[in-house]
Amino acid sequence: MIYLDNAASTQIHEDVLTSMLPYLKEQYGNASSIHRYGRMSRKAIEKARKQIAFLINAEPSEILLTSGGTESNNTVLSGIPVKNIPCNIVTSSIEHDAILEPCKKLSQNGLEIKYLPVDKSGMIDPTELKNNISDNTCLVSIMFGNNEVGTVQKISEISQICHEKKVPFHTDAVQAIGKIPIDVKELGIDLLSISSHKLHGPKGIGALYIKNGIHIDPVILGGGQERGLRSGTENVANIVGFGKACEIAKNNLSENLAYVTKLRDLLIDKVLDEIPEVTLNGDSKSRLPNNAHFTFLGVNGEDLIIKLDEYGIAASTGSACSVNTQRASHVLQAMGFSHEQITGSLRLTLGIFNNEKEIEETVNSLKKIVEELRSVSPFKEKYSFSSKN
Amino acid sequence: MIYLDNAASTQIHEDVLTSMLPYLKEQYGNASSIHRYGRMSRKAIEKARKQIAFLINAEPSEILLTSGGTESNNTVLSGIPVKNIPCNIVTSSIEHDAILEPCKKLSQNGLEIKYLPVDKSGMIDPTELKNNISDNTCLVSIMFGNNEVGTVQKISEISQICHEKKVPFHTDAVQAIGKIPIDVKELGIDLLSISSHKLHGPKGIGALYIKNGIHIDPVILGGGQERGLRSGTENVANIVGFGKACEIAKNNLSENLAYVTKLRDLLIDKVLDEIPEVTLNGDSKSRLPNNAHFTFLGVNGEDLIIKLDEYGIAASTGSACSVNTQRASHVLQAMGFSHEQITGSLRLTLGIFNNEKEIEETVNSLKKIVEELRSVSPFKEKYSFSSKN
Repeated sequence: MIYLDNAASTQIHEDVLTSMLPYLKEQYGNASSIHRYGRMSRKAIEKARKQIAFLINAEPSEILLTSGGTESNNTVLSGIPVKNIPCNIVTSSIEHDAILEPCKKLSQNGLEIKYLPVDKSGMIDPTELKNNISDNTCLVSIMFGNNEVGTVQKISEISQICHEKKVPFHTDAVQAIGKIPIDVKELGIDLLSISSHKLHGPKGIGALYIKNGIHIDPVILGGGQERGLRSGTENVANIVGFGKACEIAKNNLSENLAYVTKLRDLLIDKVLDEIPEVTLNGDSKSRLPNNAHFTFLGVNGEDLIIKLDEYGIAASTGSACSVNTQRASHVLQAMGFSHEQITGSLRLTLGIFNNEKEIEETVNSLKKIVEELRSVSPFKEKYSFSSKN
Repeated sequence: MIYLDNAASTQIHEDVLTSMLPYLKEQYGNASSIHRYGRMSRKAIEKARKQIAFLINAEPSEILLTSGGTESNNTVLSGIPVKNIPCNIVTSSIEHDAILEPCKKLSQNGLEIKYLPVDKSGMIDPTELKNNISDNTCLVSIMFGNNEVGTVQKISEISQICHEKKVPFHTDAVQAIGKIPIDVKELGIDLLSISSHKLHGPKGIGALYIKNGIHIDPVILGGGQERGLRSGTENVANIVGFGKACEIAKNNLSENLAYVTKLRDLLIDKVLDEIPEVTLNGDSKSRLPNNAHFTFLGVNGEDLIIKLDEYGIAASTGSACSVNTQRASHVLQAMGFSHEQITGSLRLTLGIFNNEKEIEETVNSLKKIVEELRSVSPFKEKYSFSSKN
């Protein structure tokens, strides 16, 4: 199987699993217990917290452990103090559902949500952001790199605007973390959501970076774990694995970035070169290193996925983080795509475990599949597809 | 190490870990992905859901997967629809913090919370419950078995009262699940919280049973997983492990119940018999099979734990699920204990991996430690402790 759905989830690194196993076997203490079993768990959690913090140049005390990226995002939106009434939140129209859905709920509860538009490459306009921040803005939340088309926003510029306006800036960095360098101090980020399973760690664990001095109300209440910000017995094994995944990502960041970017560029070049009537979506330069997102004219993306699966290739039409895969992508809609363009889209997301041979095999398979699907396409006559063979 | 803190967390059963490993290795697909990696994850989750449902005689569609017992409890309290204003919730004064803390927040938001008292064995009075339910009651939440003293409430009677009054009945069954038979249909339970790591499954995963027809608003919003009730990429490995743990618990329920009860009774008998000035707390009959909770007069429980730890025995003063272990137990306070009685308390919670030899060793160590601590106790003169040696 050629796995090209790394934006949906990634393979656990074997060193990550090795680090987790003691906590799935003999080290099963509750981290709140006083005895040695408990203390060992506590120690392991605090080590992992340091590893996570180190990846983004934060302090360990600024790392809140959550059950994943979705919970991190929800915590920000539910937990940010509402100062002035009517309060508003500025976000973008291409955020993940873990931002958009809580925003919908807040809007039902009387908050005003401003959704910034994006251009055809999926980029927001910082001037547009500036114009939309008012005295009543209690939060700006703009994602780092888009999960569908891979566009990376101008984070420095955005954070600068937020600081000038004295509004806390949150970014959903779930797709960017471990792939491109993120220094929260240098980038001026106040709140940042990350998830373990997108960077070769286990599922069900994530973190929210909360800059010292920023107040967030707790969402899950109980025993007072995570300094009262997130109650519930800590998932020690997964926290340890997450920490290890961050450490590995940090140690290999520039090397992996170069490797995956090279593979991605090979993939993009070959697809654009060898298959007719295909466009690359998202920003061609400011882009996640592992993301390739195409539109194949006259082809149904879902059919493409199913055929690719038959050929042993795991791919996606867009976000796999949404159960409702039948719904047309709100990201592509915001980018001004037609229904037909949206339907013909394919996301291939690479990872450190992919190699050149897989890319070549994928392009060869894709070429055949696209040709086959186009031969029975209802748009066959309309476009009279050429062949690059 | 003799592990007698099974109420805090339990050792993962080796068959549970075996069931999880494929999902920590090669089966890393996101359950929302269309390709075979995704479909395999989805299938694994649905199998686990059946295993969980089967343990409590529920339908798989009635099982909501959460990140643990605390989230399950929070989901009920945040998600239960508020009908009449002013709305009230009836609960007890000995609930876990995962109930009491969300209740505090609801009370700050204008809801009335009625905390039923308990008698000196930790039992609520069903008549008291009946008298406290009004037309404005939107929920009754009474725990199944107490996490500190082990008292098991009269669940059938409580549920009957709730049904007569047409109020949904929730029970936090985190400590009871897998230890005593729970049939939600027979017991008339509408909502039930359970946690994996208390029954030899992994940490960071739990479930909320929501009887068909009962409406709960989602707390964590996003991609729409768990039929929109709990968004976030599913923690496949832990879900699979939780399912397996439920299956194992179901298959061995009566056998394990008999085994652990026998061990517990041996422990209780030996402690009461061989150590002077000690009382058993909690209900002597209606009690979790694995719980032994004592008060050793004139001894500090924390000192006891530390000494026991030195002797290689993992124990607890009370709830390990609370970070704030310095706080006097609200459960013992509600049961009318004096400060001195609370201070001298020790919880020993057994599990299927304990044996008779461990119990004997524990009692021998305990005898020595209690004698040693009493010899330097500030209450030495006051009580002139006798010796049963």
